[in-house]
Amino acid sequence: MRVAVVGATGAVGREMIRILEERSFPLDELVPLASSRSAGKALPFRGGEVRVQELGVAALATADLALVSAGASVSREFIPAAAESGTVCIDNSSAFRMEPDVPLAIPEINPESLEGGPRVIAVANCTTITAMMPVGPLHRAAGLRSLVLSSYQSVSGAGQKGIRELAEQIEKLHGTEEEMGHAEWSSMPSGEVFGKTIAYNVVAKIADFADGGFTGEELKMMAEPRKILGLPDLEVSATAVRVPVPVGHAISISATFERPISVDEAREVLSAAAGVELRDDPEAGVYPSPLESAGLDDVIVGRIRQVPGRPDTLLLFACGDNLRKGAALNAVQIAEHLFAG
Amino acid sequence: MRVAVVGATGAVGREMIRILEERSFPLDELVPLASSRSAGKALPFRGGEVRVQELGVAALATADLALVSAGASVSREFIPAAAESGTVCIDNSSAFRMEPDVPLAIPEINPESLEGGPRVIAVANCTTITAMMPVGPLHRAAGLRSLVLSSYQSVSGAGQKGIRELAEQIEKLHGTEEEMGHAEWSSMPSGEVFGKTIAYNVVAKIADFADGGFTGEELKMMAEPRKILGLPDLEVSATAVRVPVPVGHAISISATFERPISVDEAREVLSAAAGVELRDDPEAGVYPSPLESAGLDDVIVGRIRQVPGRPDTLLLFACGDNLRKGAALNAVQIAEHLFAG
Repeated sequence: MRVAVVGATGAVGREMIRILEERSFPLDELVPLASSRSAGKALPFRGGEVRVQELGVAALATADLALVSAGASVSREFIPAAAESGTVCIDNSSAFRMEPDVPLAIPEINPESLEGGPRVIAVANCTTITAMMPVGPLHRAAGLRSLVLSSYQSVSGAGQKGIRELAEQIEKLHGTEEEMGHAEWSSMPSGEVFGKTIAYNVVAKIADFADGGFTGEELKMMAEPRKILGLPDLEVSATAVRVPVPVGHAISISATFERPISVDEAREVLSAAAGVELRDDPEAGVYPSPLESAGLDDVIVGRIRQVPGRPDTLLLFACGDNLRKGAALNAVQIAEHLFAG
Repeated sequence: MRVAVVGATGAVGREMIRILEERSFPLDELVPLASSRSAGKALPFRGGEVRVQELGVAALATADLALVSAGASVSREFIPAAAESGTVCIDNSSAFRMEPDVPLAIPEINPESLEGGPRVIAVANCTTITAMMPVGPLHRAAGLRSLVLSSYQSVSGAGQKGIRELAEQIEKLHGTEEEMGHAEWSSMPSGEVFGKTIAYNVVAKIADFADGGFTGEELKMMAEPRKILGLPDLEVSATAVRVPVPVGHAISISATFERPISVDEAREVLSAAAGVELRDDPEAGVYPSPLESAGLDDVIVGRIRQVPGRPDTLLLFACGDNLRKGAALNAVQIAEHLFAG
């Protein structure tokens, strides 16, 4: 079995190779592919090294499986031909997510979407996945009616260049924390990746602005849950915010259900849910934060509360490693489901 | 006119003294008061210096006006006697906010609460103020029915020790940003102020846990809007989250109204609102962030969107300087209203 990883040198690509090794994915040959700029680079794998090759049609066509994470335009250029030639393509980009015949799959939440031997499978947006991991099981228990989402997303969602920009700005500003309340905003570093200063700040813009003043990220967070949960008319609103955290996305969720659901029932449901770890013991100071979700497979969930006067509405706070469950791990889990099942 | 500032050496106290000077508040004598630890310290004022005195009953009783920001227990200990002896006390703590006969005042939003010569006036919670500045005018226009709030609160909300803890943790962790996704959570600095690592993280706990799993901060954000807007049955839910920002609180607001309200109408209302600056031109990249709100008097508001399918529901993102409009400025504005009006 020949497995290609497209975008092998990026933040998600490296994580996919690490996870294939960690989980002993049954592959015979790993083919790391990237742009010509990265071709020739050596990446560690199974105690040795593999060489990055330049991405091309032929290299993809001869793979049995391609795990793709190199942006939507690369996916659009290469995936249709690769799928046509028989390669199963699991795509981390948004290119095909909303295509009616492409499954948008989170194996714990909608495994039925993977039936029928699909050739192209889309991995949902990292923030959508973090939200769906607890919301999916609660929906099965009590019927979801609406969602209000506000995110706290890490800079690695913008790739390694996002982490570097945060580190560079921290370098410039550290030591001035006590004066920052009286500093000129115009003197703050603007950066290339996030539009505004991301160190010591939060930025309420992820991806470009689009319909209705929503950003591309927010539109994904609103459209994808409808497809994943099979609720085409679900009312969802989202505000996507970048925070100066290297790895780990957090999300504040308000979820309204068809019937009343108590905090205790929600805890029971989530304790039994695959891929979710309940960390909700406020008296003992146990609740999730994004940095502690980094490196974990599970999405950690806590701060479960019922809105006073609204027995049908729960508040939750969920955190997940955006490079792992939010992307690389979810992609490998889809591959395991298809090739082991 | 004799003006006492209680908690004069704290983050809000220093800001109050700065703002009294900036706005040429008509005082004859400034009396900075603090704990015995800080007594004797010199603070800059009107080109000269004022000496901090130890807080005591007598110093307060001889003041015409006291601006108090030294925590709820200090307020509870000193304010009743001071008010009894004739001192008008404007209190930044939560001690008296929910007392029925104490106005909870934001001069632009509920100036009517200041009528009748009150001796004790409470300044609302900093995050509540940031939310109410845009929500108040929209409520007057379209009738508020419910609020869902998620905050992004700066470390200076915990005082100068909060800023120091962030700076110290940044010192320890800077340079490790790229490896943080694979670092052990247990190796992260835990700190004294925020419970969990605040550098490179967000912490979904502000104040202690209380009823229903809500934190003290969240309960304030839920109770105070009802009193300020005179809507005792308003449905409000809040999730309060600390972020590694020195100064400036941000809040993601979902507001549902009695009648449909468009984005254009909301922009019109907010353009005319006192104390609010509309920064909402997504095409031009204009939207608020907390660090750019630092040092401003106005709360900056943008990212105004209508929830698809819900013409009665708006999303907004508001940012304000938590030490100024969120505390010190609001206190001085109340004093101006009472003593100039």
